[in-house]
Amino acid sequence: MVRESEVRAGEVVVEAPPPDDAGLVFIGCIHTPWTSRLMTPRQGRVDGPVCRIEIFEPWVPALRGIDQYERLEVLYWLHLSRRDLVLQSPKLRTPVRPNPIGTSMVKLVGVEGANVMVQGLDCLDGTPLVDLKPDRCQFTPLAPPQPGDFEVKD
Amino acid sequence: MVRESEVRAGEVVVEAPPPDDAGLVFIGCIHTPWTSRLMTPRQGRVDGPVCRIEIFEPWVPALRGIDQYERLEVLYWLHLSRRDLVLQSPKLRTPVRPNPIGTSMVKLVGVEGANVMVQGLDCLDGTPLVDLKPDRCQFTPLAPPQPGDFEVKD
Repeated sequence: MVRESEVRAGEVVVEAPPPDDAGLVFIGCIHTPWTSRLMTPRQGRVDGPVCRIEIFEPWVPALRGIDQYERLEVLYWLHLSRRDLVLQSPKLRTPVRPNPIGTSMVKLVGVEGANVMVQGLDCLDGTPLVDLKPDRCQFTPLAPPQPGDFEVKD
Repeated sequence: MVRESEVRAGEVVVEAPPPDDAGLVFIGCIHTPWTSRLMTPRQGRVDGPVCRIEIFEPWVPALRGIDQYERLEVLYWLHLSRRDLVLQSPKLRTPVRPNPIGTSMVKLVGVEGANVMVQGLDCLDGTPLVDLKPDRCQFTPLAPPQPGDFEVKD
């Protein structure tokens, strides 16, 4: 089993363009029990360990109102991943991608100051946080409707 | 109703750190019927218009095998959004965020060369593509299990 950054059979490395089309700012840090990629779950589970998402300033006030959601979508930066594989083994939902952004749906356990406690993550301890959104399934826009909301296929 | 880049009542602008913690490469371009933010749906619907996700080289070979999935997760760059609001109105799942990455779950209609046809998007025509993954609900890792897969809360 090969799990670190080597290229595996069936994988193809490309000359990747420089990743400078847009820039990210890390808005927090994710604390989990997993310190090796060989130990992390491949998919989080909502009955998994409680993990702590630490939010950095100046973004902490953005947590206001987040406790009204049971589930959150977490976007994070898979900082240890290589970015130049175009064909992968064994599957497409891997940390190795041109833009190594991971997404998880997690269960909100609670908010403690600048920390959001959740279950359902599958990333390494120290993973940089990119975004935190309400789960789209639970989200109903409060704003007035607009035309595209009702547009369907011809 | 205010929908472009002005600051609304209840919103707070912060001095945002420079977005240079990580860089993105745009791997494609999303073609939709919507050319104004005032017309786009706030949430995509799977019976919505068929949209075309164009993949750029050198990433086209990565589409191999994608047609085995009915649903895909699409990550895109909300290129017209401001990034410096910390408190927002009326809700948290808005395009205005420190890292303006949108995510949608879409229904795969078909793959035509370098183009992936889907239903369920809610973004503007010309939105840059950041990532395309199999829907996590449909994804079962093929790799052998590892310890974290079975870890639950104490």
